[in-house]
Amino acid sequence: MDIHWIGFDADDTLWVNERLYREARSRFDALLATYGVDPAGADRRVDEIEVQNLQWFGYGVMSFGLSLIEAAVDLTQGRISGQGISQLIELTKDMITAEVELLEGAEEALAELSSAHPLLLITKGEPNHQHSKIGRSGLRKHFRQVEIVPDKTPATYAEILKRHAVEPAHFLMVGNSLKSDILPVVAMGGWAIHIPSDLTWEHEVVEIPPHLRSRVFEVAALSELAPFIETLKGGALQAGPA
Amino acid sequence: MDIHWIGFDADDTLWVNERLYREARSRFDALLATYGVDPAGADRRVDEIEVQNLQWFGYGVMSFGLSLIEAAVDLTQGRISGQGISQLIELTKDMITAEVELLEGAEEALAELSSAHPLLLITKGEPNHQHSKIGRSGLRKHFRQVEIVPDKTPATYAEILKRHAVEPAHFLMVGNSLKSDILPVVAMGGWAIHIPSDLTWEHEVVEIPPHLRSRVFEVAALSELAPFIETLKGGALQAGPA
Repeated sequence: MDIHWIGFDADDTLWVNERLYREARSRFDALLATYGVDPAGADRRVDEIEVQNLQWFGYGVMSFGLSLIEAAVDLTQGRISGQGISQLIELTKDMITAEVELLEGAEEALAELSSAHPLLLITKGEPNHQHSKIGRSGLRKHFRQVEIVPDKTPATYAEILKRHAVEPAHFLMVGNSLKSDILPVVAMGGWAIHIPSDLTWEHEVVEIPPHLRSRVFEVAALSELAPFIETLKGGALQAGPA
Repeated sequence: MDIHWIGFDADDTLWVNERLYREARSRFDALLATYGVDPAGADRRVDEIEVQNLQWFGYGVMSFGLSLIEAAVDLTQGRISGQGISQLIELTKDMITAEVELLEGAEEALAELSSAHPLLLITKGEPNHQHSKIGRSGLRKHFRQVEIVPDKTPATYAEILKRHAVEPAHFLMVGNSLKSDILPVVAMGGWAIHIPSDLTWEHEVVEIPPHLRSRVFEVAALSELAPFIETLKGGALQAGPA
């Protein structure tokens, strides 16, 4: 294997993200409980509205905030108060300004890998918010380029690689989401390392088709990443289409 | 003058944008009138909330929608109904799916200029929505590259030009906003052509300092742009620091 460029997802790969969404959902549940709304039923409806709204609002915290507001009106049959709506707007702002909490080993893994590989940060979401998080993370210096994309499809990755004149066979993507970081990359001829996260949005979980599985590896933690990539390059693993 | 690369703003430079915001504000005013809120006082408060919220939500329709919701709660002292909130969410979605209406002469100007110059589309806002509008506009093919940025500062432009290895002195930006398209570009050593729009958000109006005015030109319409740029290149105008 001749891996040259390495791409990294950001949310839940380099820093904590999904936990902020779960905490926001708890605040939402507590607010709606005061209207007699059962959290279990609410969860399904919020998920539904959130996924439906991707077509208009895309990925990110503002999209999530608008979905919570829509769900609050829906689940309370319009009884939600102005003050309740204000709380949901506050909660959205809190998520945007939340401290960026690096995952263990992120800094070390990037420092080590960036000495031998050009690194790309490839993340979806709202650019304003993502740029702010990247700045506050202190990790910007390890990356050759930051790519903030509306969605992560095989075409998204193909376009980025083309622009940097990188062959898919020499590109490896690292991320926590099978749907966004792993499947589209191996589908267009690249390689991927999956680092499962404690928490992953269920919308991001997919099955990798059997014929692509030989292009996907899994490591348990960021601390294992650089040594594992060295092993791959050494050709100790016979990789390629099964 | 040796202009090589030309940058274009999109909203209100190539297609109608501000009118959609004004129409949305009319719908907002009509909704709030049913709560006895006076539109004149409301306007000031909405502007204030909108500008304040840029720090959290950035530029774009979702940011605007969240600001309208916040303003509705504020201006009705929390009396806004769930149904009223739903209408504001609908209005936000309507803005996102609104047809892209090209300004007169946009297609022709880009077709002519792209035969002699690499063109960059440089727009701020939410990438999901901007990519969708660019796709639907039919104008993507004229641009070497599309850059969607969180804000337009001198540093934003400098970074883009550096990435494309373009000297500021060989770069010309075309746009309707003095604040976003003209001032930052001439401040970092480039050239700019201002095409005033019928409607411009007042937040985007600034004064160009006298020592930079010799780097700014004005044309009245897109149809005059290509001939005017030819004149500039011919050196008929003696341009440079006054």
